[in-house]
Amino acid sequence: MSSGRPCPIVTLTSDFGCGSSYVAQMKGVLLSKNTELSLVDISHAIQPQNVREGALILADACPHFPANTIHVAVVDPGVGTGRRIIFAQIGMQRYIAPDNGLLTLLAHQSSPSQIIDVTNRSLFLPEVSSTFHGRDIMAPVAGNLSLGLDPQQLGMPLDSLVSLPFPKAIIGDHQIAGHVLSIDSFGNLITNITRELLPASNEELKSVRVTFKSVAISGLVTSYGHSSPETLVALMSSNGRLELAVVNGNAAKLLSASVDDPIIVDWSA
Amino acid sequence: MSSGRPCPIVTLTSDFGCGSSYVAQMKGVLLSKNTELSLVDISHAIQPQNVREGALILADACPHFPANTIHVAVVDPGVGTGRRIIFAQIGMQRYIAPDNGLLTLLAHQSSPSQIIDVTNRSLFLPEVSSTFHGRDIMAPVAGNLSLGLDPQQLGMPLDSLVSLPFPKAIIGDHQIAGHVLSIDSFGNLITNITRELLPASNEELKSVRVTFKSVAISGLVTSYGHSSPETLVALMSSNGRLELAVVNGNAAKLLSASVDDPIIVDWSA
Amino acid sequence: MSSGRPCPIVTLTSDFGCGSSYVAQMKGVLLSKNTELSLVDISHAIQPQNVREGALILADACPHFPANTIHVAVVDPGVGTGRRIIFAQIGMQRYIAPDNGLLTLLAHQSSPSQIIDVTNRSLFLPEVSSTFHGRDIMAPVAGNLSLGLDPQQLGMPLDSLVSLPFPKAIIGDHQIAGHVLSIDSFGNLITNITRELLPASNEELKSVRVTFKSVAISGLVTSYGHSSPETLVALMSSNGRLELAVVNGNAAKLLSASVDDPIIVDWSA
Repeated sequence: MSSGRPCPIVTLTSDFGCGSSYVAQMKGVLLSKNTELSLVDISHAIQPQNVREGALILADACPHFPANTIHVAVVDPGVGTGRRIIFAQIGMQRYIAPDNGLLTLLAHQSSPSQIIDVTNRSLFLPEVSSTFHGRDIMAPVAGNLSLGLDPQQLGMPLDSLVSLPFPKAIIGDHQIAGHVLSIDSFGNLITNITRELLPASNEELKSVRVTFKSVAISGLVTSYGHSSPETLVALMSSNGRLELAVVNGNAAKLLSASVDDPIIVDWSA
Repeated sequence: MSSGRPCPIVTLTSDFGCGSSYVAQMKGVLLSKNTELSLVDISHAIQPQNVREGALILADACPHFPANTIHVAVVDPGVGTGRRIIFAQIGMQRYIAPDNGLLTLLAHQSSPSQIIDVTNRSLFLPEVSSTFHGRDIMAPVAGNLSLGLDPQQLGMPLDSLVSLPFPKAIIGDHQIAGHVLSIDSFGNLITNITRELLPASNEELKSVRVTFKSVAISGLVTSYGHSSPETLVALMSSNGRLELAVVNGNAAKLLSASVDDPIIVDWSA
Repeated sequence: MSSGRPCPIVTLTSDFGCGSSYVAQMKGVLLSKNTELSLVDISHAIQPQNVREGALILADACPHFPANTIHVAVVDPGVGTGRRIIFAQIGMQRYIAPDNGLLTLLAHQSSPSQIIDVTNRSLFLPEVSSTFHGRDIMAPVAGNLSLGLDPQQLGMPLDSLVSLPFPKAIIGDHQIAGHVLSIDSFGNLITNITRELLPASNEELKSVRVTFKSVAISGLVTSYGHSSPETLVALMSSNGRLELAVVNGNAAKLLSASVDDPIIVDWSA
């Protein structure tokens, strides 16, 4: 900021649904703490209670934000039970979330440099409900952080985060067995097979074979527009993952695909 | 604000649908009046013409915002007819809405201290369509208010708002007959039975019986995570209302529930 | 702005879907360039790859924004192929979009005063993917423009934009043959028959006959609320187009209507 203030950007991610009053309640609490906040919605379209989907969206989106952005993430089936609420500094970004694995993939990208068990009740709303800690704990804590509060004031340090298992690709001899990690709004299948697992040269990429269910695709294309409409293609996604897409169509529908479906890549020596 | 300016937050609520250009047109008009506005969407997912649903969302969300926030609400089936557009000061919040009952529940929470019939055409867009007063009247009026305009400049004072009937819970002898007021994005059923209508002690709450259609639930839990997945539970919602939920599931689907369905709570003496 | 800075409003329009991480990634990149940006979503609910729908929403919404707003529009089936990315100044607004017809209707409203082929790679992200130019090219370019960069630094000037064909209304003797241009979230049918094509006096409008499929409507009403619920009415939309609506209902569903369906208006001499 030109005025040298700390950057007051707060993002929100939840499974509350588009247009839910729960999101608005959190925004009201945040702005009541700091009217100068710049609020950005990452997504509220995460499937209810789907912590894994939340972890993927956070890992895809948050690292693109400016340093010191505060990301508040609420996919919280354990609200009101003993699960912790944590603050974490990962890379240049700051996170407030339930400690249920939501930050797993972010922590894989870059090891957290600070983790704190958020317990300082003086920073919460005066009345804390047992079903909406996003509004009663996470929002006011994030508002306080945006005003310059030292994270050490939030509670005691922790050594580690709860981690969720994510299926890893299995590397064989000229073969990789992976899975569909997510399906985007175009119906593109994003897999857990990353660029570095595949043959190094772009020439070799043209000769890989991708098999999904009973369908085989020969070679990777560079982008959608290089094939004709309705063609099923394989390519590298903008996040460096192997992706299956139908040009101007919907691969998930065409292939009746779901998250976790297996996918095989193989190539000749 | 650090500079001592009035807080220029404007919220928007409508039945225009997520991603509607109508919302964007209103934002354009608002920012054209005042480029420094901080715009917050409360919800645009209200069912078309469902004034009652709008009233509920406004009552849940708006009171959480900072003092002097301007809330513009457009669920307006009577646009272009004789229905009034009003300004209302309720508690520390300010509202611009059609006078069709949208502010009913807010006015129940706290009596309006000022109501004005918005008629000062010099504050509207030069051309006023007959089908989109949100853009042509409410947005420019809100923009002017955000710049410090005295609400008295908007038109003549009114004594009261149009009020919508909302079903009230009926209190019997150790029994309450209420209704489903709304269904949230998780499928949780939020009722019109509030905490103060129920037995006072938390001990007694454990012995109430909640009956919905042919299903009876014994006792209230504190939060979702205290029961196993797929269990139907009753609990107090984060807004102080009796709520039915399925742990990690969807109560509305399981019970084929709709808004206005009756619900009974009873307990022994 | 009170401080005399250029107005840093950036709008976003895409077919990424509500809650897509692709939108959030673009916002992260934009804010990383300029943390003081005010970001406004126009719509992310455009049908995948539907450039025509994008063109309509942009034309409806963007001209309402303050001068110098930067509108970033990403409906981009040709990403990664030879299609250009362009900057255009149209009226008082600035646009960054793929050169695929997205700006067609805006350019019909007002001729572009400047068009530039965006090729200056020093303004892009260091690594440009072949499938997400919204994030890797358009967002950082828009961020740079918001900081005051002269558009001439983006690349070489162009003479014209790629234009999409839109069906025009055919004017006959006391008759107009038009089409459904779009269907809004209420199910209202918005047509390509504009006010100036119809008889001049409001008296005459009461005697036009509107025919859609096998249904004929006599006369235009002023607004929805002037007829009883569930009535099919014709009226002028808030954007000056002939519109078919069902009062408190959904015309598109009632009439099984689709974009491009023909509609006839005729009147006596």
